[in-house]
Amino acid sequence: MTFELTKEFVEHIKELVQQENAPAIRTELKELFPEDITSILYELETEQARFVVNQLDTKLGAKILADLDPNERRDFLKEFTSEEISRYVNILDSDDAVDLLNEQPIRVREEVIALLEDREQARFILDLLHYDEDVAGGLMQKELVKANVNWTVNQCIEELRKQAEDVEKVYAVYVVDDHDRLLGLLSLKKIVLAHKNTKIESLYDSDMHYVETYRPAEEVAELMQRYDLDALPVVNVQGRLLGRITIDDIVDVITEQASSDTLAMAGITGDVEEDDTVWEQTRARLPWLLVGMMGGILAAKFISFFEDDLIIVPAMAAFIPIIGSTGGNVGIQTSSIILQSLADKSGLDAGVWQRLLRMFAVAFINGLIISSIVFGFNLLIGNEVQLAVVVSSALISVIFLASFMGTVTPLLLDKLGINPAVASGPFITTANDLIGYGVYFGLAHLLLDL
Amino acid sequence: MTFELTKEFVEHIKELVQQENAPAIRTELKELFPEDITSILYELETEQARFVVNQLDTKLGAKILADLDPNERRDFLKEFTSEEISRYVNILDSDDAVDLLNEQPIRVREEVIALLEDREQARFILDLLHYDEDVAGGLMQKELVKANVNWTVNQCIEELRKQAEDVEKVYAVYVVDDHDRLLGLLSLKKIVLAHKNTKIESLYDSDMHYVETYRPAEEVAELMQRYDLDALPVVNVQGRLLGRITIDDIVDVITEQASSDTLAMAGITGDVEEDDTVWEQTRARLPWLLVGMMGGILAAKFISFFEDDLIIVPAMAAFIPIIGSTGGNVGIQTSSIILQSLADKSGLDAGVWQRLLRMFAVAFINGLIISSIVFGFNLLIGNEVQLAVVVSSALISVIFLASFMGTVTPLLLDKLGINPAVASGPFITTANDLIGYGVYFGLAHLLLDL
Repeated sequence: MTFELTKEFVEHIKELVQQENAPAIRTELKELFPEDITSILYELETEQARFVVNQLDTKLGAKILADLDPNERRDFLKEFTSEEISRYVNILDSDDAVDLLNEQPIRVREEVIALLEDREQARFILDLLHYDEDVAGGLMQKELVKANVNWTVNQCIEELRKQAEDVEKVYAVYVVDDHDRLLGLLSLKKIVLAHKNTKIESLYDSDMHYVETYRPAEEVAELMQRYDLDALPVVNVQGRLLGRITIDDIVDVITEQASSDTLAMAGITGDVEEDDTVWEQTRARLPWLLVGMMGGILAAKFISFFEDDLIIVPAMAAFIPIIGSTGGNVGIQTSSIILQSLADKSGLDAGVWQRLLRMFAVAFINGLIISSIVFGFNLLIGNEVQLAVVVSSALISVIFLASFMGTVTPLLLDKLGINPAVASGPFITTANDLIGYGVYFGLAHLLLDL
Repeated sequence: MTFELTKEFVEHIKELVQQENAPAIRTELKELFPEDITSILYELETEQARFVVNQLDTKLGAKILADLDPNERRDFLKEFTSEEISRYVNILDSDDAVDLLNEQPIRVREEVIALLEDREQARFILDLLHYDEDVAGGLMQKELVKANVNWTVNQCIEELRKQAEDVEKVYAVYVVDDHDRLLGLLSLKKIVLAHKNTKIESLYDSDMHYVETYRPAEEVAELMQRYDLDALPVVNVQGRLLGRITIDDIVDVITEQASSDTLAMAGITGDVEEDDTVWEQTRARLPWLLVGMMGGILAAKFISFFEDDLIIVPAMAAFIPIIGSTGGNVGIQTSSIILQSLADKSGLDAGVWQRLLRMFAVAFINGLIISSIVFGFNLLIGNEVQLAVVVSSALISVIFLASFMGTVTPLLLDKLGINPAVASGPFITTANDLIGYGVYFGLAHLLLDL
């Protein structure tokens, strides 16, 4: 029952758009969920997409706008007048409305807000525009159902009836006092099962989670994930209920976080997608390539000091790659494990020493196995024993050093408040390369009597 | 209001356990959420943790067991008798119960099921044990509220009352026909607002998402995320309603997926955590280190063919690292971008040629900038122009080749049904190293007249 987008279907819709056959388009899209229509729009030209959306009713159009990727949406809305935009913004959830407006030029944003028919929606949006995107306030929506603690269940149901249109997913009714301060919540299940005249006071649950507007998005995500929450009320410093954050927004935060961490580890700055322009991709990728290049230039400068040694023992050059790649691989493995455990804050953190000790134990075993095999290889191809000793000792040292760097770098960056994923990959690889070559040539100088 | 676990508090609880002061433990933990008690247990010895859990009531104990990390839970439950375990399993959600039982030896599993007081729970568990962990059937729970399409709202509420104890989060009531075939759903909001005598038939929503038991977990996660679903009903091939999957389980699937992909990219096999034993960590890390080592040995063998060239132009050795690291960095960047776009299936996939074209455009710009800088560096430190040309040409070629490998490898692995993240990192790095050195020394041979 999952909708599968096919080339044929996209072509068919394109044809209908060309014929400006509005009724046929409506018929074709009638059975689809808004999210499926969104994926069709991605395949159309902006002008075609605009024609399609204009044939749908405003409510469906608003859902599609909320679902569109922000970059696509910005381009897409350029084709719309402020008045057209305001019709959609009027019925969007307040959090989606604010996201959409934040992508617009200030002039359009102000025009749209001025044109909104629903003045409550306008007030909601003005409230939410204050908050940064990456704090609880920037994630919340104003739509929620609240009930005064002194009401009966019946009054609560009446309030629910009034709000039902605006609040798509209810989850629970929030219970507040006369000053709008959050006291607790009442699940819909309890409301269904309760007697109509029961006082809310005697029903509601005061044991609940809430969050202040200024809390960072990651903290909110962690909280909702840890305690399996569907929705989280947001309060100001006085404890007044301002809005709520729903789990679907948090799923997006978690996915974006994971994807941007992966990109950061791979040495990519910013959120790049495959279909971004060549220029955007270049800009995201060049910085770390330049860092790697600087490392390579330093390594070149460094190795050139040992040129005389290389003329005497040219076989040494052959092991430069294995020194570099082993250091790089061990460093990335180690830092990934540390990154993962930094992300998962379920218990007390282990101390740095304890972490290093364990990493060193693993390094010892891996180093022993790898350097033994390489030692055997060296003897097998008839290299001198001294060279074999130099290469294997350098490998063990590099594995230890890379384990050390891989453990300490992310911990240090985290302490300094820098996202440890951002700098771990390329930074550690480059540092390990340099250290590795230093150890290698240093040992060679000592052991080969150069 | 977030609970912060402190060393002092853990020490305090440890003392109370030592004094076997059960009432004080109960008082200390009374105000905490089950998830917070879990994080305390992680800091205790297994014997101490068992003492703490035994002081709590069974319902709270069951919640804590459901929240425990599977590895910790297996060790922890070794201290319990089958009878004790069965008391908890009796009240766990069926999906959590099955997860817990799957970690137990077969003997314990069968004893526990035989000892269950709630025979419906036993039947639920036996049903669910059939399914693999990573398909929809393995994610679902049997607890749900369903209503016959011919009932009235009132009958539906009575059913809800009966089930309320067992089904913690209701979200919606599932509507079925006389053969238990899923027809649609009815939100709690609609039930609250409807007249008591209304027929469900005229109220329910048949426009909904569902999934068959055999669908892979990633597909379920994608579906629930794409359509912002809180719960997803699971049916068999005849369309009979068997269970439901709730969003909190999917959040866990998404997080685990992201973390295991990151580990795979860093060259770590299996799900390793920092506090796993040294042996487990070594086993997870050694395979790719060995692959990297094999690459290094091949590179050594390869470079040794050019030993004579190196004696004539020893400065060539100095640029081995930059060739290797640039290839590695470009390859990982490219494959990460392709991996990310494979994971995000919102539109039609771009063809391989289109992808390569874009990647090559980016490679061209990056390659031009980097090789120009390195060219300048070479001239600056007084290297011969021919060497500078060789190094920079090799760099450009490596950047193109790495872009090609980084694009094609994950696409190919994905086509072959292998998780593309698993082999991308170390595989691409190693392949790029080898190709890079080949190009470098080949060009040198051609251009330096060696």
